[in-house]
Amino acid sequence: MYKRIPAHIGVIPDGNRRWAVENGYDKHDGYAHGVQPGFALYELMLEHGIKEATFYGFTRDNNKRAMVQREAFTQACIESVRTLSGRDANLLVIGNTDSSAFPEELLPYANRRVCFGKGLIKLNFLVNYDWEWDLRHALEHGAIASAEISRIDLLIRWGGCRRLSGFLPVQSVYADIYIVEHYWPDFDKQHFLAALDWYQDCDVTLGG
Amino acid sequence: MYKRIPAHIGVIPDGNRRWAVENGYDKHDGYAHGVQPGFALYELMLEHGIKEATFYGFTRDNNKRAMVQREAFTQACIESVRTLSGRDANLLVIGNTDSSAFPEELLPYANRRVCFGKGLIKLNFLVNYDWEWDLRHALEHGAIASAEISRIDLLIRWGGCRRLSGFLPVQSVYADIYIVEHYWPDFDKQHFLAALDWYQDCDVTLGG
Repeated sequence: MYKRIPAHIGVIPDGNRRWAVENGYDKHDGYAHGVQPGFALYELMLEHGIKEATFYGFTRDNNKRAMVQREAFTQACIESVRTLSGRDANLLVIGNTDSSAFPEELLPYANRRVCFGKGLIKLNFLVNYDWEWDLRHALEHGAIASAEISRIDLLIRWGGCRRLSGFLPVQSVYADIYIVEHYWPDFDKQHFLAALDWYQDCDVTLGG
Repeated sequence: MYKRIPAHIGVIPDGNRRWAVENGYDKHDGYAHGVQPGFALYELMLEHGIKEATFYGFTRDNNKRAMVQREAFTQACIESVRTLSGRDANLLVIGNTDSSAFPEELLPYANRRVCFGKGLIKLNFLVNYDWEWDLRHALEHGAIASAEISRIDLLIRWGGCRRLSGFLPVQSVYADIYIVEHYWPDFDKQHFLAALDWYQDCDVTLGG
């Protein structure tokens, strides 16, 4: 069906707060509605033989938001991992664990791979991630903090913004970037299929 | 007229070879047709008060191309700087000068700012640039090689591809990315104005 399948897909699930406001909720309520879409996408990725995926959880910069929002997106990350632990994935949580913003519930999965079930897909989850922290890690340790994460082929961003927002700057250098205008909680299978369709015609030269 | 003007615009002038083929030229002929558009854009930037611009010249990866193409894009870079020297700009050429692919004609402008005329705009030109070289520079020298280049607000890419292709990974982390479907040699003032229009409604939160 597809002549090219991206080995590694990056996911920026943006628009949770805008979705909440437009649907009559408080801003922070949006995050809880962003958990289920992640699993719908996970199932689609398994179906299509995607080998690796990286989800943007939250960043150091996101911690500037109101406390009620911070609690909500942190809780959504914890709930996602809890649910994933009953599925089949090879989880790697990457983020700065030296900060109190890193949820202790996720410490067992931080900076090492933990296999759930049959481990059918490498699933990377950026939690309290900070691109400067990631790069600066190389100065002290000889490799960036996210060195275990491979190059991204296709990056899909929900919510209409056309930027990386600090998402894995090293792995994203050659990523083809597909923007979905819909907010993340309104995730639909068709968004993913449209991204895959579009990816078929992206010319991969890596500069050559 | 505009409520927001980007301080720093990145430019990826892609599609020179595809333009050449579609217009009955040899692939390498496209690059020579990409010089004049750069100056049309330069004039527009001055008109709109843009303080800094970074143009993607060529990269280490581009050196994998046929020799006749390498000669053509190198010559286009040299000619651009020669023409610019008669205008008003504060030029900084960034690229790996340790490699023989770096044109010696541009050595006087490499890794330091050189002021032409009234120096009305900071103009950065990536020549034999290599994102890995840029980042690795920090390991030995404490700062990335392009540290003198500021954060990019708006990145405009011609030629329809939706990716960074290794363009300044650090400075592009929060850049709003605008894609022009037209090939670079078909540059038109309206492309730039449409990018500026689009930029008006990009929400800048820097993650907060």
